[in-house]
Amino acid sequence: MTNETIQDIKVYMQTLGQQARQASRQLATASTAQKNAALEQIAVTLQEKMAWLIAENAKDLAQGEANGLDAAMLDRLSLTEQGVAAMAEGLRQIATLKDPIGQISEMSYMPSGIEVGKMRVPLGVVGIIYESRPNVTIDAAALCLKSGNAALLRGGSEAAHSNRALAACIQIALKQSGLMQQAVQVVETTDRAAVGEMITMPDYVDVIIPRGGKGLIERISQSARVPVIKHLDGICHVYIDSEADAEKAVKVAFNAKTHRYGVCNAMETLLIAESRAAEILPGLVELYQQKGVALRGCAQTRAIVAMDEATDADWATEYLAPILSIKVVADVQEAMAHIAQYSSGHTESIITENITTARQFLAQVDSSSVMVNASTRFADGFEYGLGAEIGISTDKFHARGPVGLEGLTSQKYIVFGNGHIRE
Amino acid sequence: MTNETIQDIKVYMQTLGQQARQASRQLATASTAQKNAALEQIAVTLQEKMAWLIAENAKDLAQGEANGLDAAMLDRLSLTEQGVAAMAEGLRQIATLKDPIGQISEMSYMPSGIEVGKMRVPLGVVGIIYESRPNVTIDAAALCLKSGNAALLRGGSEAAHSNRALAACIQIALKQSGLMQQAVQVVETTDRAAVGEMITMPDYVDVIIPRGGKGLIERISQSARVPVIKHLDGICHVYIDSEADAEKAVKVAFNAKTHRYGVCNAMETLLIAESRAAEILPGLVELYQQKGVALRGCAQTRAIVAMDEATDADWATEYLAPILSIKVVADVQEAMAHIAQYSSGHTESIITENITTARQFLAQVDSSSVMVNASTRFADGFEYGLGAEIGISTDKFHARGPVGLEGLTSQKYIVFGNGHIRE
Repeated sequence: MTNETIQDIKVYMQTLGQQARQASRQLATASTAQKNAALEQIAVTLQEKMAWLIAENAKDLAQGEANGLDAAMLDRLSLTEQGVAAMAEGLRQIATLKDPIGQISEMSYMPSGIEVGKMRVPLGVVGIIYESRPNVTIDAAALCLKSGNAALLRGGSEAAHSNRALAACIQIALKQSGLMQQAVQVVETTDRAAVGEMITMPDYVDVIIPRGGKGLIERISQSARVPVIKHLDGICHVYIDSEADAEKAVKVAFNAKTHRYGVCNAMETLLIAESRAAEILPGLVELYQQKGVALRGCAQTRAIVAMDEATDADWATEYLAPILSIKVVADVQEAMAHIAQYSSGHTESIITENITTARQFLAQVDSSSVMVNASTRFADGFEYGLGAEIGISTDKFHARGPVGLEGLTSQKYIVFGNGHIRE
Repeated sequence: MTNETIQDIKVYMQTLGQQARQASRQLATASTAQKNAALEQIAVTLQEKMAWLIAENAKDLAQGEANGLDAAMLDRLSLTEQGVAAMAEGLRQIATLKDPIGQISEMSYMPSGIEVGKMRVPLGVVGIIYESRPNVTIDAAALCLKSGNAALLRGGSEAAHSNRALAACIQIALKQSGLMQQAVQVVETTDRAAVGEMITMPDYVDVIIPRGGKGLIERISQSARVPVIKHLDGICHVYIDSEADAEKAVKVAFNAKTHRYGVCNAMETLLIAESRAAEILPGLVELYQQKGVALRGCAQTRAIVAMDEATDADWATEYLAPILSIKVVADVQEAMAHIAQYSSGHTESIITENITTARQFLAQVDSSSVMVNASTRFADGFEYGLGAEIGISTDKFHARGPVGLEGLTSQKYIVFGNGHIRE
């Protein structure tokens, strides 16, 4: 389907929604073996269709170049032989994960004699709205399938050929594995109105996961009438406490900033206790400078090491670049106050040997990941053992932090009696 | 504050919201002892102010009578000595519950050497919008306090005097226990615009729980920009399977309908397998008729016992009254198909001795509570051992089924390292 043939986006999206809802009923009770077989079959199909996938991707790349996309965007858009192999590998990894559906927990007897517990079930239909990376099509489809959810995928227009080709591979595989092909559907129009429909169909879509820039996520959150698992900024902090081990502090603060720059779990602001600043900052700053990180400091920082001045805007900025702001604070209280004011609630880490200070930081810092003596770069579904991740939620409702299979499920109560009635 | 003095509802609500947000930060780290002391202090204050509370409530009752409220509404509105004692008892029960905040679970080591787990934290600010029952003011405040959440309470205009008086008792108690008085705030305007503001302030309110009629809940869900824990209809089913124990079937089906009529977990439709209808229905129908339950049956039911005809509308109706619809089905598949079509997703129960049929029903029925050989009347926070309940969610997102303290919390990830960095 192309834009030209879509007469009525609303009708089109409602139809996809109804089909997804229907498929979700079948998927909810598909066996683990059946779901794993489908994942394996998608992997096989991707490898079989490798040449075609790369040719379809080349059309997107050519169009992207013609439209003046920058090198970074073209890189994200590009599908190489290695990239397709990585998708297949990802599918097989998800197949090896434990099936969350049907897990029964917390069964216990009540005074009335009934036995009550919880059973894990799929959410139903998951809508994913994403930008250029075509591998999201496969990752998202795989996580939804494994967790028994039907998926409605809406990729960026710049990847339209690639996504359509990947969707075709998924369709072939679903058919071969005996699952409904509507279990994974790719929205085949680049009309923006389709997104507007998708996020306002609570009858057919149970949750929306936007993956992309802040602008996209904010637009969607503003107008959605379906719950959104959103992942906004990552303004992450490392705080070097007065009782920090200097060696660990330097190691972690250096890694949190320089391991990768363009990622949401990179540190953007370093906080350091007054009593340790003169000792630790000079050596650390030298390491950053050797690495080419531009530094911006508060007045106290600049009194110790010369660097540019940090303004209020710096504390509120996610650089996603080799830039770091540094602030000297009196103590953990001032550090936590700064974090409460400027953090995006993603990830913060304290470097300290004092257990009471560490416990205080853990309890009081209101972020999706709070760490002690570890690099913020660990905030990641794979590093947390989730096996895969569909996003990182900076919200509190339903799912928080890295979202894996479990974040795509819900729990219902189950009750066993033996003819029990309420008296 | 009265309606006349509120110049700008928006400014008023934003101020309440900001205060609630600030108080929520203090409450999030209040000790268990401090929260329990506050609950006890509210109980003491209610008992001290008993006479005044009843006098204030009398003003609402007088106004309600003048406004022509019916007997049932006046009954819900009324605050008796016994009612106040029950509130105090409820507060003390909640004080005895285990504090969910700070609970650490699932800590385990990852291949990288970091230790990852989850810590339970409050949601932040909970907005409760409710109708006439003034006891909700105390119940909701207590559950929010114990779970470390600030509460913003908006009761019905018909209970304005009672709610204001109860709020005053809470304020006195909070002050005496050293918690911020803004931890529990009652919206002191009956202007509907206040609700509109409350449900569209995501910066200050983390979740809305509406308690009241379907109309209220639908209006709120339609326009909320904050997550809503909603509880719509309870169209609950009992299915008597071909392999049911007849005695258990009669006992449960009778209890599920007649134990109480006006409650969401009462059965509204009885489904029975063809093979057992002629044996079980006549005796069961006689019991219902003795109890004065009006019966409406499908054609097959009426071929066995004479009764009114059930129409399609019956299958979709929550009677909340001594009325029951009865349908004969071929088997568990047809029963589940009927449930999928007409159930509100609240509670369904199967009566069977066959474990395979029971497991199938448990896995496939998509309701917040699914039961085997037990009365639907058990779907309740107290019966499930939650200690208290703030509502029953028929949604899947975040909380499902009876919502107790845990439903008012979230989990953040916590990570321990020893200078660990990502390589």
